[in-house]
Amino acid sequence: MIDAAPRACWFNADRIDAFFSALSQDQLEQEIAPGRNRLIYLWGHIAALNDGLFPLLGLGPKLYPEMEAMFITNPDRAAVTIYSAEQVKLAWNHINEKLVAGFSGWSPTQWLERHTAVSDEDFLQEPHRNRLTVVLSRNTHMAFHFGQAILTKPREKRS
Amino acid sequence: MIDAAPRACWFNADRIDAFFSALSQDQLEQEIAPGRNRLIYLWGHIAALNDGLFPLLGLGPKLYPEMEAMFITNPDRAAVTIYSAEQVKLAWNHINEKLVAGFSGWSPTQWLERHTAVSDEDFLQEPHRNRLTVVLSRNTHMAFHFGQAILTKPREKRS
Repeated sequence: MIDAAPRACWFNADRIDAFFSALSQDQLEQEIAPGRNRLIYLWGHIAALNDGLFPLLGLGPKLYPEMEAMFITNPDRAAVTIYSAEQVKLAWNHINEKLVAGFSGWSPTQWLERHTAVSDEDFLQEPHRNRLTVVLSRNTHMAFHFGQAILTKPREKRS
Repeated sequence: MIDAAPRACWFNADRIDAFFSALSQDQLEQEIAPGRNRLIYLWGHIAALNDGLFPLLGLGPKLYPEMEAMFITNPDRAAVTIYSAEQVKLAWNHINEKLVAGFSGWSPTQWLERHTAVSDEDFLQEPHRNRLTVVLSRNTHMAFHFGQAILTKPREKRS
């Protein structure tokens, strides 16, 4: 029953997917607000952060380590060349599918195992530093940026 | 250990509190983007939605039922008179403190009880419709709007 929580999270990923996947390369060039990140950067940013879940959850190495420099450590419009819309989309799909496949088999006990950035010793003191809370906080991060991205949408209803 | 998840959520509420509480009435009149909701509306909106958790979690009636018309059913700048900054702040604090007090005593079993909008019968088929997932999805909602609100902040770092 505990796995309802991560499942609810990744339902959020579906909404984000529907939003970004419908946009053209041109539309992805839009800024979320004047002088702020472009949509393409935001999409890549969310994908890259999710990619970081693989090592953190003990599911293997990142699939697209090069996205870190493009979408995390450097701000938008930095000197680095970033992925095209097509490449971001491909990476996003690949990352999400593989993550969901990774989660799906876990028992509640496995969800409550420590994540790899915390030592066995620290985990004894801080049992909340588990896989579940890492995934939930990644979900919060996605929602935070999705709220920004959606501002570029022509207004049907408020907020 | 399961209660790490809601605790992680309400840590998010602390960040939101720090952001909004520091703003003056004038600053709260700012729009998150041209023609979009004002900050004061967004703050009231998050507070009003959280207020809805009391009945949903079986913690009693809403504390500020009048906020529903002001901040949920009507869009910003509708004909209804809304709370002042001072009133929103008061309501926000009251709602959050009482919610946290309500959560704090729960055992994992209590977290996994059904929420009140689902019948006993449906809950047998859909055990994920529990208090935990309701609180987590409310947290996602907060993050979604907080990502928007923060766009009004002078840019120190990107996004």
